[in-house]
Amino acid sequence: MGSGVKIASRQNERIREAKKLSQKKYRDQRGRLLVEGVRLVEEALAASLVEQLFFTERLLASPRGQALVQWAQNGAVEAWECSEAALGELTDTVTSQGVVAVARKPSWPVAIQGVVVIADEIQDPGNLGTLLRTAAAVGAQGLFVVKGSVDPYSPKVLRASMGAVFQLPHWLVEREELLRQLRKSQTSIVVADLQDADSFWNVTYPPQLAVVIGNEGRGVHPSFREQADLVVRIPLLGQVESLNASVAAGVLLYEILRQHHCSAGDSVL
Amino acid sequence: MGSGVKIASRQNERIREAKKLSQKKYRDQRGRLLVEGVRLVEEALAASLVEQLFFTERLLASPRGQALVQWAQNGAVEAWECSEAALGELTDTVTSQGVVAVARKPSWPVAIQGVVVIADEIQDPGNLGTLLRTAAAVGAQGLFVVKGSVDPYSPKVLRASMGAVFQLPHWLVEREELLRQLRKSQTSIVVADLQDADSFWNVTYPPQLAVVIGNEGRGVHPSFREQADLVVRIPLLGQVESLNASVAAGVLLYEILRQHHCSAGDSVL
Repeated sequence: MGSGVKIASRQNERIREAKKLSQKKYRDQRGRLLVEGVRLVEEALAASLVEQLFFTERLLASPRGQALVQWAQNGAVEAWECSEAALGELTDTVTSQGVVAVARKPSWPVAIQGVVVIADEIQDPGNLGTLLRTAAAVGAQGLFVVKGSVDPYSPKVLRASMGAVFQLPHWLVEREELLRQLRKSQTSIVVADLQDADSFWNVTYPPQLAVVIGNEGRGVHPSFREQADLVVRIPLLGQVESLNASVAAGVLLYEILRQHHCSAGDSVL
Repeated sequence: MGSGVKIASRQNERIREAKKLSQKKYRDQRGRLLVEGVRLVEEALAASLVEQLFFTERLLASPRGQALVQWAQNGAVEAWECSEAALGELTDTVTSQGVVAVARKPSWPVAIQGVVVIADEIQDPGNLGTLLRTAAAVGAQGLFVVKGSVDPYSPKVLRASMGAVFQLPHWLVEREELLRQLRKSQTSIVVADLQDADSFWNVTYPPQLAVVIGNEGRGVHPSFREQADLVVRIPLLGQVESLNASVAAGVLLYEILRQHHCSAGDSVL
């Protein structure tokens, strides 16, 4: 399988070019990213975003790995078998699965409808990835990533998203521009705050809703707080000062789903 | 402040002894752990668990840092000012706050009452730490860590717990022994499963309840599943196959809190 020509050297020109995408600067410049591991590459292939595939002999040991290379080649993706050393240049994890792809960044037309989620300068890659995964799980229509958040195309975000980064529409935006669009589309804004607010269970959530998840350290930005239509509080017992950002998001988003589902009598849930 | 004698060398005997606690083997052997950063050391001091404090000049730059050293000394904790190089031997983070403590592992008498949480071979330190934090936030009475889970006293778990590791009673247990104790105390077991189960919103949770959070890869262990009194499903829309373990825990635990609160009419929430 592959082109018949194997890439042996770490210094190979294709490897060196691909490796640049481990830096955000080059991801931004080229609109491409590195995708690592069988599951994530499958998701990127399903989204027709893969341009190049680099793999080692190890990948071909499993039928799933073989199928992946076949799939790539059927889709006219350049597929290169590599030495472990050459592939090692492109991997972020300690135990690689023997496959890395170069993919285009996903993109979607901006649409504000139903429930959308806003990542307001989320710093931790695990939190942003988990937020993408959770937003997709509750059927959110998309996620706005406010500039200043961690890059959604960094390896750790991709892994934590479990592939949701290729499924859930998301957009990188300036905060003020987003606020303008939310007003224009008459979308209600809900923020979670620690005090002086109704419990999140005692609030009725409108169907067209933007849920703001704040920065891990300082919480939701004042601009969102000032323009919020709903401020809710997630109760904290004991001496706990706050929840992890992605847990808070999950708890709030599932309560919104529960309410919307219960009023709709949607039996599929 | 400090004893007046500064530890300059990385080879200092106290530093070398303390450093051993960065390995699980020595933490188990000695019943001690390393606690890093102002917030976590404060929590360990509040729990009267700190035995030794190592800090650099940098810590004394803030009033909070000064108060921490004072607090330690008032409590008859050995406090040692160190060079940056010496303290660097004990730190796990890239940007240290200039303070590390040696603390005894917390311990509590085993008590099964109210809602308890079970970490069933949780592998990711971030997930276990977040689970401790979330369990404390919903007022759970304790957390059982099934053997095979990541060590709750590893630096990443401590950080993700945000100090909850010093507040929430928790116990390291064998699975079968725990199941025996749960039966004996007539505690209902609830597990979350992906299919063939009632939605977690449509189930009534008894007040004495053990909530099992399964391993990230394989889910809940068959022993728990077979002996579960309640099997519930957290709905997943889109193409998402599962939630992050600590998000699933948060979503389920807050629904249990909502039900228990609503029936009790507890206005504090």
